[in-house]
Amino acid sequence: MRQRIAIDMDEVTADTLDSYLAIYNADFQAQLSYADLAGQHIADAVPAAHRERVLAYPDDPAFFRALPVMADSQAVIQRLQKHYDVFIATAAMEYPTSFAAKFAWLRQHFPFIAPTNIVFCGDKSILDADYLIDDSARHFARFRGEGLLFSAPHNRDVTGYRRVASWQDVAVLLLPR
Amino acid sequence: MRQRIAIDMDEVTADTLDSYLAIYNADFQAQLSYADLAGQHIADAVPAAHRERVLAYPDDPAFFRALPVMADSQAVIQRLQKHYDVFIATAAMEYPTSFAAKFAWLRQHFPFIAPTNIVFCGDKSILDADYLIDDSARHFARFRGEGLLFSAPHNRDVTGYRRVASWQDVAVLLLPR
Repeated sequence: MRQRIAIDMDEVTADTLDSYLAIYNADFQAQLSYADLAGQHIADAVPAAHRERVLAYPDDPAFFRALPVMADSQAVIQRLQKHYDVFIATAAMEYPTSFAAKFAWLRQHFPFIAPTNIVFCGDKSILDADYLIDDSARHFARFRGEGLLFSAPHNRDVTGYRRVASWQDVAVLLLPR
Repeated sequence: MRQRIAIDMDEVTADTLDSYLAIYNADFQAQLSYADLAGQHIADAVPAAHRERVLAYPDDPAFFRALPVMADSQAVIQRLQKHYDVFIATAAMEYPTSFAAKFAWLRQHFPFIAPTNIVFCGDKSILDADYLIDDSARHFARFRGEGLLFSAPHNRDVTGYRRVASWQDVAVLLLPR
């Protein structure tokens, strides 16, 4: 039986942070950059008065229409599919209005992943997979496979897991030589 | 660590078939009943010319607002939560427009199940749980735990799994004496 890989969407296959920064900088005439976020989420890096507005950005369906694909994710995932069963697992429960928009985004940019292999879940430890590629280590605690931490500014100081800094790193780690 | 139970929504916690029959009978001035469906899904039991319209019923958000809760499911699930971690797992991928309506229905009728424990997935073999209570045996094939078949007219002739005909049966099977 083939091994399974579950892959997160936000900040792993989708460059969600790029969208947040672009909208935030336009919204508040700011110049916030990746470097300003080291060790924290964008909602914690902005002034407290801006926080609620920033957290609401994904409520706008336009957010997902403009969301960029993470570099190399499409090509590497297609190569992974030759060796593994690949699932996308995204935590959409904080934004119930975003389910349909997230699903449409995945179908548009990752048409080679079947709808049956798309999972929306809040607690990813419920996934029966061999690997989970995610930027949030909180999902790894009860996960039965190995969590691979996809580097993002907010997880800079997290230790205890193998780390991948790019999709090229994922290819090196999981594809046969 | 506590055992986990994953529970389907349609025809297990929600009496989806009751809604289909009510809408269909009003729509086509018909008298279709549970007894007419033995061994098949409603979409296969109606004249071919009606099939597409029947399959589209869940596209209307009103479908979920009127959807009844399966008898005893709320009380038994609350008792199960004292002994198990309970997840709801529903296959919403055929009806992407229904994600938000299904989520709202679950929050309304099962407020004691946390949003983190609600899963939308097409292929339920991805769930890492000890039991899966479902009316569709197709999800059991690669599932690592035990599938418990919740009786519905369409699965009357399915064999090979332990079967529960009601939520009282679930209580007898999974709750301590």
